[in-house]
Amino acid sequence: MNRAKPPPSCPLPGAAAGNGRITLAHGSGGRLSAELIERLVRRHFSNPALDRLEDAATLPATSGRLAFSTDTFVVQPRFFPGGNIGELAVNGTVNDLAMMGARPRWLSVGFVLEEGFSLAELEEICASMRQAADNAGVTIVTGDTKVVGRGGCDGLFINTAGIGVVPEGVDLGAHRIQAGDRLIVSGPIGSHGMAVMLARGQLSFASEIASDTAPLAGLAVDILRAAGSGLHAMRDATRGGLGAVLAEFGRAASLGMEITEQRLPVPPDVQAACDILGLDPLFVANEGVLVAVVTPETADAVLAACHAHPQGRHAACIGAVCAEHPGKLLRRTPFGGRQIVAVPAGELLPRIC
Amino acid sequence: MNRAKPPPSCPLPGAAAGNGRITLAHGSGGRLSAELIERLVRRHFSNPALDRLEDAATLPATSGRLAFSTDTFVVQPRFFPGGNIGELAVNGTVNDLAMMGARPRWLSVGFVLEEGFSLAELEEICASMRQAADNAGVTIVTGDTKVVGRGGCDGLFINTAGIGVVPEGVDLGAHRIQAGDRLIVSGPIGSHGMAVMLARGQLSFASEIASDTAPLAGLAVDILRAAGSGLHAMRDATRGGLGAVLAEFGRAASLGMEITEQRLPVPPDVQAACDILGLDPLFVANEGVLVAVVTPETADAVLAACHAHPQGRHAACIGAVCAEHPGKLLRRTPFGGRQIVAVPAGELLPRIC
Repeated sequence: MNRAKPPPSCPLPGAAAGNGRITLAHGSGGRLSAELIERLVRRHFSNPALDRLEDAATLPATSGRLAFSTDTFVVQPRFFPGGNIGELAVNGTVNDLAMMGARPRWLSVGFVLEEGFSLAELEEICASMRQAADNAGVTIVTGDTKVVGRGGCDGLFINTAGIGVVPEGVDLGAHRIQAGDRLIVSGPIGSHGMAVMLARGQLSFASEIASDTAPLAGLAVDILRAAGSGLHAMRDATRGGLGAVLAEFGRAASLGMEITEQRLPVPPDVQAACDILGLDPLFVANEGVLVAVVTPETADAVLAACHAHPQGRHAACIGAVCAEHPGKLLRRTPFGGRQIVAVPAGELLPRIC
Repeated sequence: MNRAKPPPSCPLPGAAAGNGRITLAHGSGGRLSAELIERLVRRHFSNPALDRLEDAATLPATSGRLAFSTDTFVVQPRFFPGGNIGELAVNGTVNDLAMMGARPRWLSVGFVLEEGFSLAELEEICASMRQAADNAGVTIVTGDTKVVGRGGCDGLFINTAGIGVVPEGVDLGAHRIQAGDRLIVSGPIGSHGMAVMLARGQLSFASEIASDTAPLAGLAVDILRAAGSGLHAMRDATRGGLGAVLAEFGRAASLGMEITEQRLPVPPDVQAACDILGLDPLFVANEGVLVAVVTPETADAVLAACHAHPQGRHAACIGAVCAEHPGKLLRRTPFGGRQIVAVPAGELLPRIC
């Protein structure tokens, strides 16, 4: 969701106490804390599990293994073309669960707010979170709000943790990757990182690049259905980009990960911005792209399933797993050579998610 | 755990890159991120679910309803007599789960680190977290680390989320509170808040007050066993103190909560410090005290169970639920009067947990 929507006009809690801004009293556990939760958070996130406002939510009985994940979001700026920190905080954890083959079900939300933070902006972010949760089919069931003094944090941080249910027989992970497996990426890479970078306004060229933030649970279900036990591992290529994920897989599986440069789906505007900045799109963050590691026999079916899904229209097979160079990421160049790709030690773009 | 333990002498990751301090590169998703996780976090938290280092942990199948809770910890200072932020972050979420009658099982951990944060201090905090998790019988199965630039946060924030399993037939919460129920507090109040306040060193008197931070799951099990279905609700009296919890119960149940002032267990040194500062111990934070709302018939058995448990030795029945003054907290004074207690709107002590 973009920033276009006007802030709601109904009065916000603490408006009198803090002129429409967060005060330390909102985090005290006292009356203003209770009002903030009752009138702002509960208004947007309301559901039977949350509305009890107990210390912990009680969830219905499940059968099957659980997936459990957490992520904290500190992105700057908080609003960028294609999304905002709230949407990202929901999609990020939903996607981590989906990558294990789980059906994402429940989320927790922890806010850290700086004294002086705008209540209208907080409300807008909460509305985005609810929208993203509804889109992904998950329910926000429990939460926490802390307030720190001015200078104690940079506006707003959001932690989400999530629980998903893993279907019977599904076991995904780097431990299942084998030499010969194919590497399938679900869509064009680098959009989120470049959209956030450009939204910082420190560059002198205009661009239409928008973040790709999206829930990947639906696509993951389709890939799992197409590949069955031929799906060995999935991961969403967020912080560190596609390159970092492939390198992690290579290290964990002690296998080489070989990609063919020309097959990488890089949007022309992302490539142009990366060229100007001297960045490699392979290491730029995404928020709606996954990489699937599948057997050669199921690769075509997985590609077809991706192409039939809105989030996978531009999916491509970009390479394969090899027994040589265990733990390394290899790039086959247009001239037929094969290079070992060095994973950056440090920071291409800080605070990207 | 207190600060006395010397920092470990073995080399820390990134020591070369950042002189033993967190750099932005540690949060990049690149090579230094992987090293930080492999060598620091995994070294302290290692277990089969975590060691796979997937995007989400996969947990064994459970039967029964789940409890799910989250809390972010921003306490200043991070080390104080009786505990530190890491221990608090584990006990806080464990206790929230236990208050629903759940057996706490799994935790997630999300760190937000400021560039320049000491790796030795981070390691000490991780060691405390592991110790607290072991004491509480929970496993840290998944995590996330973000780094923000200098000034982006105040050192270190820790979010924990937790999953517990609720035994068959257990249903606790404010919705079950009835007029006539007894209010039992498990121990002396106000120690955590005053310990943190005094550790800030802004006061000119010395004191031996130590935080009461402790896991309450064992005590909660004993109370549940003693009361059976006579236990209606439990809550740990953290931020906002015992008074805030009682007021929340009163609002949620639309009943009056009446306490007898002389029965409140307040340690003399806490009372003395509160008197000097003009604070009411009823609204000072605790981290190892719970309040249980039980039927009159089970109150004696619950008190006996508390007295037999190390965390409940000084438990006391401090009052009862009444039909009059719904939503209000009432205090019976030594002279036989009954006053409505105003819950502070704002902040007694910011950043207490």
